[in-house]
Amino acid sequence: MQELVAELLKGNRRAAARMISLVENDDPQKRELLKDVYPHTGNAYVLGVTGAPGSGKSSLVDWLLKQIRKDDLTVGVIAVDPTSPFSGGAILGDRIRMQDHALDSNIFIRSMGTRGSLGGLSRATREAIQVLDAFGKDLIIIETVGVGQSEVDIVKTADSTLVVLTPAGGDSVQTIKAGIMEIADIFVVNKSDLPGADKTATEINTMLDMKNDQAWRPPVVPTVSVSNEGIYELWSAVQEHRRHMEDSGRLLEIRRERVRRELTEQVEYLVKNRIWDRVKEKIELESLVEKIVKRQKDPYSSAGDLLSKIKFYDQDSEEGD
Amino acid sequence: MQELVAELLKGNRRAAARMISLVENDDPQKRELLKDVYPHTGNAYVLGVTGAPGSGKSSLVDWLLKQIRKDDLTVGVIAVDPTSPFSGGAILGDRIRMQDHALDSNIFIRSMGTRGSLGGLSRATREAIQVLDAFGKDLIIIETVGVGQSEVDIVKTADSTLVVLTPAGGDSVQTIKAGIMEIADIFVVNKSDLPGADKTATEINTMLDMKNDQAWRPPVVPTVSVSNEGIYELWSAVQEHRRHMEDSGRLLEIRRERVRRELTEQVEYLVKNRIWDRVKEKIELESLVEKIVKRQKDPYSSAGDLLSKIKFYDQDSEEGD
Repeated sequence: MQELVAELLKGNRRAAARMISLVENDDPQKRELLKDVYPHTGNAYVLGVTGAPGSGKSSLVDWLLKQIRKDDLTVGVIAVDPTSPFSGGAILGDRIRMQDHALDSNIFIRSMGTRGSLGGLSRATREAIQVLDAFGKDLIIIETVGVGQSEVDIVKTADSTLVVLTPAGGDSVQTIKAGIMEIADIFVVNKSDLPGADKTATEINTMLDMKNDQAWRPPVVPTVSVSNEGIYELWSAVQEHRRHMEDSGRLLEIRRERVRRELTEQVEYLVKNRIWDRVKEKIELESLVEKIVKRQKDPYSSAGDLLSKIKFYDQDSEEGD
Repeated sequence: MQELVAELLKGNRRAAARMISLVENDDPQKRELLKDVYPHTGNAYVLGVTGAPGSGKSSLVDWLLKQIRKDDLTVGVIAVDPTSPFSGGAILGDRIRMQDHALDSNIFIRSMGTRGSLGGLSRATREAIQVLDAFGKDLIIIETVGVGQSEVDIVKTADSTLVVLTPAGGDSVQTIKAGIMEIADIFVVNKSDLPGADKTATEINTMLDMKNDQAWRPPVVPTVSVSNEGIYELWSAVQEHRRHMEDSGRLLEIRRERVRRELTEQVEYLVKNRIWDRVKEKIELESLVEKIVKRQKDPYSSAGDLLSKIKFYDQDSEEGD
């Protein structure tokens, strides 16, 4: 395993791919790996891209990749589709176009679908970012399909977030209302050659103007991804937001927040494991379940009883002596 | 609070509404309430209805309500929209039609939007079901918008699940592929007066035929909800699935599984609270976070160190003596 980390740090693509598979499959050795990977992270900037299906996100990311490569940055792309059961090797429909970049060794593209729980997918995404960060990518793009809560959770891992909308009449505005407003650092009105593009941009700007408490006022960038229009401006906007994040200290702040969350999750993971090991040792869980099913007990009091039985609470009193 | 539970059990609608607000807002008194409510639950049957936006789910539920009322059953409806920030009193767009039923005291309708995390919404839904169950509703319908992972999580609370599709060409089939297959007990092809309805039904049936390991073979029911077509057949299919669930022992099995999950969550809730209280007492968390941010430590080893410091592990060794 340490060999795998060494290979990753040397820039071995297959090591990167394998390690992402390990985190994705929640391999038992995952934690050891991530521990070794961690000291080599913290250099990559993470860009989130989200938008409804059909908003042309993927082709936007394709063009963006070409633009970014002009700046000689290395890029990792994680395309997350919470509605897809496919993952890893399986290339999602419109991801086929990305094969353009497959020959460019400075670009690493990976798709991730749903495996198990939703929390699992957002966790796997965070861990894949760690891997690609240690792998040496300067920029990591997280592309998620849709604008539901699941995508919001995934995109929260990003340092800058693009929300891609299209001139879709009333729909787009409704989407913005649904909690998307808060996560967008940059709004993209893609397919801006379609009718209604100006109206959509105006609506977004009006909404943004109503919030005057912002340190960063999200720009609204029109693009036509099929013909590469507005991509340069979009990349400039991303760079500007990055500078804002760095200069304002906001980047350090959100990274600190992420560490807090990671530490919390790790503590709770260890605690849970230990507790359940003890429970399994001491408690006839199924007979308790049966009593709750029969309404002879309730789950709330039973949880407390169970912890008393494994002496979880004794710890405090012993120490109080 | 005990008075509130007493009022709920008496059938006071305002008590039900207030209690759902309390669970939704994660009120500190929530656990006490749910504990008192729990012994009075276990009678309601839960029907989940999910489908993409625009599939006509709400109007289908409206007609279904009329049908169900003919059998003299009392019904609670929880309309969950994970993309909506609105909740409670706020009536979702197409929910206005439901006001038809507002005068029928045997029907209780409530909408729920996103508040906080996704886990929060699926938890709030489960707790609202408990409340409506104790409130005396015979049937509880959980209606969710969309077919993403978030909706799947919510719908898992149901005893029977309807997946509503429309004759939408290639789209519908793709939706089915995306993990929806597993949660559907009954497929509804709504708007069956539109072209392609037969093709959609055939495609679903073909997919179902490929899985021959099923104790229950989901029927595919065509409906036209605007004109009430197929609603009687749909209700019959629901009743048939319910009988299957009861007779096969599957209902008891999934309810046992739910109790296991609830007990697990309650235990982990208590443990987490206690652990963090102790951590806050003993540990300078921010300086640890700072070290992790600077890559002087990693979150994985730090979690273990932290638990050693609060003597979480001592518990085991002490008892080993």
